Amino acid sequence: MKIYDFKGFANPARVRIAVAEKGLTDQIEFVHVDLPNGAHRTPEFFAKNPSGTVPVLELDDGTTISECTAITVYLDHVQGESTLTGRNGKERAIVHMMQRRAEAELMDALGTYFHHATPGLGAEIELYQNREWGEKNLKRAMAGMHYLNQVLSRQPYLAGESFSMVDITAFAGLGLADFLKIDVPDTLTNLQAWRARVAARPSIAASQA
Amino acid sequence: MKIYDFKGFANPARVRIAVAEKGLTDQIEFVHVDLPNGAHRTPEFFAKNPSGTVPVLELDDGTTISECTAITVYLDHVQGESTLTGRNGKERAIVHMMQRRAEAELMDALGTYFHHATPGLGAEIELYQNREWGEKNLKRAMAGMHYLNQVLSRQPYLAGESFSMVDITAFAGLGLADFLKIDVPDTLTNLQAWRARVAARPSIAASQA
Ligand SMILES: N[C@@H](CCC(=O)N[C@@H](CS)C(=O)NCC(=O)O)C(=O)O
Ligand SMILES: N[C@@H](CCC(=O)N[C@@H](CS)C(=O)NCC(=O)O)C(=O)O
Repeated sequence: MKIYDFKGFANPARVRIAVAEKGLTDQIEFVHVDLPNGAHRTPEFFAKNPSGTVPVLELDDGTTISECTAITVYLDHVQGESTLTGRNGKERAIVHMMQRRAEAELMDALGTYFHHATPGLGAEIELYQNREWGEKNLKRAMAGMHYLNQVLSRQPYLAGESFSMVDITAFAGLGLADFLKIDVPDTLTNLQAWRARVAARPSIAASQA
Repeated sequence: MKIYDFKGFANPARVRIAVAEKGLTDQIEFVHVDLPNGAHRTPEFFAKNPSGTVPVLELDDGTTISECTAITVYLDHVQGESTLTGRNGKERAIVHMMQRRAEAELMDALGTYFHHATPGLGAEIELYQNREWGEKNLKRAMAGMHYLNQVLSRQPYLAGESFSMVDITAFAGLGLADFLKIDVPDTLTNLQAWRARVAARPSIAASQA
């Protein structure tokens, strides 16, 4: 399998962590896509992902899967139990509900702030910006951090008792916050403690190696 | 099980179709939430769904699941095979990828247009509007229709050979387009033919009964 991505970027980080969690590192060849130079805006790349984003997983039969959620679902079923995306209907439903929240209220809100209210990937890539919408999304992300902190007052991980792709999404979201120099408030003690626990998982170091 | 929703609205329609597809109508009690009067902005409702949207599924043990994707995943595992959300890892991954696209490029784009560039649910509910962003999302939805039309030139359903929750999402998205008086271009013949085929499924009539 191949993964087209840009090492160090927030969405690619999500899939790299999932790869490490599932012990699949040896089965993947990573292919660098030079986003700041527009390598994801070519006909070849749009054929792999019409949305023009990384990461993209390419299977050996040529099938291409984009969207971190979808890629993680695939990787989670390659071998062993589907631990990251839920083992049964109820778990899966809760994982997908919380995944959507971690994306909409944190990762994607920060992505929108980045693309609309900062220079983003540069003037050649950011062809349309709406600064007010970008700023609004920064507020949404801050509210999202408070929400996640509250969830973690009831349970150790964002989808319940065990680590899941939702934790990966939110962890990478906070990484994007760091990159954007947005502080995670010290008052969010559950979120801070959870973040330290996730950071200590071997998959985090492995995904950055 | 209970489902809190507003009959006739686009996202509730998605779950009502899924309920009918899975033959679960008799197992569900529907509870009306009066959105235009703000019944989804109360502490009681936020306790069920902090995002303050319908539909919400409430299980008999009190667990609440929101987000149409998550609710459909749950319903799809109640009995029989998981036909709407994929039977194995690869199918599930493709369904989730295409679901994200049907949401982002059609349903949610039209929802953003509705909430930001039209009176939406009324001045008491629409406390922040960004008209330019709303108009931008109408363009995105029109491009989304073209994209879905192209997908349907290769395969009968949006996630491949069989009907899935992605078809439900896009069908309900076109219903929202109708409500907004946005024409689906006649040139999108694959999309039009697919829409007629989906409209003829017994679940559509059942969901509107
Ligand atoms: N929802 C997508 C988000 C992917 C995404 O936005 N990736 C960024 C890099 S972190 C990207 O490719 N951006 C390219 C662009 O915005 O032009 C996913 O889950 O994969
Ligand atoms: N992503 C959500 C969308 C739900 C949604 O936006 N529902 C609308 C009704 S169609 C709603 O509750 N709107 C309330 C509001 O915007 O205040 C889902 O999949 O359930």
